[in-house]
Amino acid sequence: MQRSICVINPNSSTTVTAGIDAAMAPFRRAGALPIECVTLEAGPPAIQTQRDVDGVVMPLVALARSLEERASAFVIACFSDPGLHALRESTTKPVFGISESAALTAMTLGQTFGVIAILPTSIPRHLRGWGAMGVLGRVAGEVAIGLNVADLAGADTLSRMIDAGRRLRDDHGAQVVVMGCAGMAAFQRPLQDALAMPVVEPSQAAVAMAVGRVMLDG
Amino acid sequence: MQRSICVINPNSSTTVTAGIDAAMAPFRRAGALPIECVTLEAGPPAIQTQRDVDGVVMPLVALARSLEERASAFVIACFSDPGLHALRESTTKPVFGISESAALTAMTLGQTFGVIAILPTSIPRHLRGWGAMGVLGRVAGEVAIGLNVADLAGADTLSRMIDAGRRLRDDHGAQVVVMGCAGMAAFQRPLQDALAMPVVEPSQAAVAMAVGRVMLDG
Amino acid sequence: MQRSICVINPNSSTTVTAGIDAAMAPFRRAGALPIECVTLEAGPPAIQTQRDVDGVVMPLVALARSLEERASAFVIACFSDPGLHALRESTTKPVFGISESAALTAMTLGQTFGVIAILPTSIPRHLRGWGAMGVLGRVAGEVAIGLNVADLAGADTLSRMIDAGRRLRDDHGAQVVVMGCAGMAAFQRPLQDALAMPVVEPSQAAVAMAVGRVMLDG
Amino acid sequence: MQRSICVINPNSSTTVTAGIDAAMAPFRRAGALPIECVTLEAGPPAIQTQRDVDGVVMPLVALARSLEERASAFVIACFSDPGLHALRESTTKPVFGISESAALTAMTLGQTFGVIAILPTSIPRHLRGWGAMGVLGRVAGEVAIGLNVADLAGADTLSRMIDAGRRLRDDHGAQVVVMGCAGMAAFQRPLQDALAMPVVEPSQAAVAMAVGRVMLDG
Amino acid sequence: MQRSICVINPNSSTTVTAGIDAAMAPFRRAGALPIECVTLEAGPPAIQTQRDVDGVVMPLVALARSLEERASAFVIACFSDPGLHALRESTTKPVFGISESAALTAMTLGQTFGVIAILPTSIPRHLRGWGAMGVLGRVAGEVAIGLNVADLAGADTLSRMIDAGRRLRDDHGAQVVVMGCAGMAAFQRPLQDALAMPVVEPSQAAVAMAVGRVMLDG
Amino acid sequence: MQRSICVINPNSSTTVTAGIDAAMAPFRRAGALPIECVTLEAGPPAIQTQRDVDGVVMPLVALARSLEERASAFVIACFSDPGLHALRESTTKPVFGISESAALTAMTLGQTFGVIAILPTSIPRHLRGWGAMGVLGRVAGEVAIGLNVADLAGADTLSRMIDAGRRLRDDHGAQVVVMGCAGMAAFQRPLQDALAMPVVEPSQAAVAMAVGRVMLDG
Repeated sequence: MQRSICVINPNSSTTVTAGIDAAMAPFRRAGALPIECVTLEAGPPAIQTQRDVDGVVMPLVALARSLEERASAFVIACFSDPGLHALRESTTKPVFGISESAALTAMTLGQTFGVIAILPTSIPRHLRGWGAMGVLGRVAGEVAIGLNVADLAGADTLSRMIDAGRRLRDDHGAQVVVMGCAGMAAFQRPLQDALAMPVVEPSQAAVAMAVGRVMLDG
Repeated sequence: MQRSICVINPNSSTTVTAGIDAAMAPFRRAGALPIECVTLEAGPPAIQTQRDVDGVVMPLVALARSLEERASAFVIACFSDPGLHALRESTTKPVFGISESAALTAMTLGQTFGVIAILPTSIPRHLRGWGAMGVLGRVAGEVAIGLNVADLAGADTLSRMIDAGRRLRDDHGAQVVVMGCAGMAAFQRPLQDALAMPVVEPSQAAVAMAVGRVMLDG
Repeated sequence: MQRSICVINPNSSTTVTAGIDAAMAPFRRAGALPIECVTLEAGPPAIQTQRDVDGVVMPLVALARSLEERASAFVIACFSDPGLHALRESTTKPVFGISESAALTAMTLGQTFGVIAILPTSIPRHLRGWGAMGVLGRVAGEVAIGLNVADLAGADTLSRMIDAGRRLRDDHGAQVVVMGCAGMAAFQRPLQDALAMPVVEPSQAAVAMAVGRVMLDG
Repeated sequence: MQRSICVINPNSSTTVTAGIDAAMAPFRRAGALPIECVTLEAGPPAIQTQRDVDGVVMPLVALARSLEERASAFVIACFSDPGLHALRESTTKPVFGISESAALTAMTLGQTFGVIAILPTSIPRHLRGWGAMGVLGRVAGEVAIGLNVADLAGADTLSRMIDAGRRLRDDHGAQVVVMGCAGMAAFQRPLQDALAMPVVEPSQAAVAMAVGRVMLDG
Repeated sequence: MQRSICVINPNSSTTVTAGIDAAMAPFRRAGALPIECVTLEAGPPAIQTQRDVDGVVMPLVALARSLEERASAFVIACFSDPGLHALRESTTKPVFGISESAALTAMTLGQTFGVIAILPTSIPRHLRGWGAMGVLGRVAGEVAIGLNVADLAGADTLSRMIDAGRRLRDDHGAQVVVMGCAGMAAFQRPLQDALAMPVVEPSQAAVAMAVGRVMLDG
Repeated sequence: MQRSICVINPNSSTTVTAGIDAAMAPFRRAGALPIECVTLEAGPPAIQTQRDVDGVVMPLVALARSLEERASAFVIACFSDPGLHALRESTTKPVFGISESAALTAMTLGQTFGVIAILPTSIPRHLRGWGAMGVLGRVAGEVAIGLNVADLAGADTLSRMIDAGRRLRDDHGAQVVVMGCAGMAAFQRPLQDALAMPVVEPSQAAVAMAVGRVMLDG
């Protein structure tokens, strides 16, 4: 049996999981290793507060451990990287967080990156994360679009993201834009086209890193 | 009814809770506000891994919410500050983490502080915390004594702590030593005497901040 | 005789001292330790330049030493923290600067804080202070209201402070506002109400830390 | 024709190129995209000074451009990342430097990493690079083994690397070791076994990132 | 023979060299050591990309070595400091880059400095430089005027620079402005007058440092 | 009348002033602008505590203002840079601190510098200064020789300085050594010879910067 890169969506929204799964198409077309997108059924409908983040860690680790046999690597597909370090302790498989991976990827695409957050309250949490990663000096800024995860399917999401991206580029000096939510995956291409600058979709960034790592580690 | 500063020990060790409670004596002698030390019975015997840290957040928040009526403030008495930001979202009462408070207090006592960790594996977790707090430039270094929480009652704990403190002072240039575990409370005085430099006991540091805040906020 | 927390206003304005004293009301209502607000008569009417700051250090230290017997702690109530480290060398009592204490307190209330300065020329001086403290990464920015200390009693001070607070919140992303002058104490409550975010009054922040420390150190 | 990840060794040593090529074995076993290791014949026998680094940029860019048609991505296989930003300007293909990639990879494996440098004079150059990347806070330290590239084939290279790795781990607190030269590739496995901690071989790290990126970008 | 401070303009524009030479007038009036401004004929007409920067290093080092006998010091008069570290390795004479010198000089004139860049694409390159120098915390920001080096002689250059300077002062909080191109030398005086704040001309800053160093080193 | 660079020794030791004056010999041999070394008679015999530092600011500023007519620039010749920012406010002449100038000069000589302090208690004060300057990332470390200013004339001072320099070079990785006291001037040459690395004498560093600035500003 060939193992899969297990991408775990820690919220319970199968819509979000489907969006992430669709974003895996380029890897599948390229004949990459198997990639499996899994929903954490025990998770909340959306992860928007620190409690949401902390609350999914234990079920997420439990789910990952149940997948251990068939996993070649794990990707935690929530931009707050819940359980990233706990899962690294709990498995011998490589573990990637989409926030961490998006930042590391953005750092190869420009000198500073800006982040499109869903809610203003997400920003302090992200800043703690960049501080813990030691990469604050590469962060141009964050701009929130003021939408809940559930509202990302709305008609004006793209236009809000374009506005946020322009502010990050023009006011904050970002050379790269990072989409700060796994639920934004469908907008990567139109956003990148509208902004004419690199836009990092974080689940793709994490899986890209996972693919290479799994091949290397054998 | 006068409310209490609720100091929650998120591990299930009543020995550790008793040690923290004993460290509250100076506040009680000074006629401070009521202070209540509570054990999180749902917690693990010790909090030593990131999973331990993440695993106590939800029961800790639940316990705090059950204490909301009688609490004037909350102190989270584990040096990894589990649930600090989740609890801040969940209550209108001020919340203090002993790690954050110890660092802020140490910053008023010297230009750089060193931390005595229990285990080598605690150090990267602490470093992420200092990075998230943005105070890495004030951290002289960390030295682990290589003891589990359960072993802190052993005969050679103090001598290991003194050795670690001397290394922090002499090799790392620390002007202040922070004890990096709530279970070390009994050693503050002899350690400070042996090192002849300020030693911060983190539960005391947090309660000191809480006392003033509660008085201010009324 | 019970000792007092001695809050020294290093400018000679008794109006400013009275404002600080009024801001101590919550501590007094709460039955805290005695707090005494003292004016440095030898100080200038306002401390607005670096020379003003440096010029008050020696008389301030002299005054503090004359109060040594009756002091349980010292608070230096000028946002440039004049003599903070000189006084720490000169007394065995704990010493708090209102700028340092305000920053440390703000760090428990949000991820980044903004500062309302009196004059544009205050800002570089504050930035040197944040750099020396190693907390620049937590500073969202500073905005000056363009008023001398003497003019803070004017009719439009509050509206200027609200404007400055909004800029700090909306343009700089601050989650907490720090009032950057001891003479602004009377505006803490209306400013916090207007901005709907935490506003730190620095003399209160310093006394809150002092109250806890004095109780701890006995 | 399927394009290749072109790994350019910017020194003229075919021995070094062969070592890098051998390190690609895991990717080839895993059925990754074609990987081609190319020697820059115009390069010096070894790249050890800043002049060596700067001197290879123009021929390296010229070589890359001549390979543009058949390249899916470029990897610059010298730990000083010569021409990284110049090549990024000159091609639409993704470009990876082995130093940058090694650091980003190490940041997913531990909180701080240490670097084994060949010569003491390499260290200031590396530090400038970490500063430009904004990741100095994640660098535990660097230790040089005092060998020229040409001498890396010598009998005591591994033991020197083990000594350096132990110093990085024990004295500097590194949780990950990065091998700071493309010519060290053969030692990754024995070094990792000896140190019992993750050891990053930089050419592998860069190709791992390139593999995922190429699959993603199609 | 008295040696000269050799100021090398690494682009081939004799107009730029003449502008730099004119900016040396104050030193000559003051009877400073001889200063000689030299054009790198092998350089490109302007240095605007990273390839331009990297491409001039080897001819610049070769030219400098040919001038070794008559040089007391070298100044590299391009704001990307091409070859700064390579030339330091290659000569025993002191070497100054105008970007590095401008930053160090600005740090004596105000707490934060802003940079007027020629093109938006220059900014990430400058940011890498400030990061490598470890002075990012002193950089208020960069604003580009959107002109090529060749267009700096145009009629609206000064007004664009004044606009950029005002944005740096008013929006970014800069206390000092650094002109980010050797080709802007003629505008130092009118720009400083218009902005009423210190404006650093980088070639002058570097020669000022060189004059003192040469006198000291004898 | 030609104006002089006024080097003010803010302690009252004419021995220290004479040592600084002797260190000016290279500038005088080179025909630099007049340099005058002045003793602050009102200063303490040595500046070793923060109170010493703060206590000399007002008399130093007063002395400088009395010299205003005949000064082309001011150099404050104490490694704690007392009154640097106060004097900058008080005069239109350029003002250099020897600590600031030594750091900026060291930054042109190597990637990291180490500092030889007189007393262990000087080090936290220096660290605050490096933090305020935003250059902590370039500081390899500090080592104290444990001598008062008055004892620097003793027989073993040089050997202690050599030991400290070796520790900075070998244990801390410094590429440049800065002598952290104006009273060490006589040891620059033998120390540099013994260490075989650049050694910065801070009064010379400041005067070198002043010479160039005065020539530029006319």
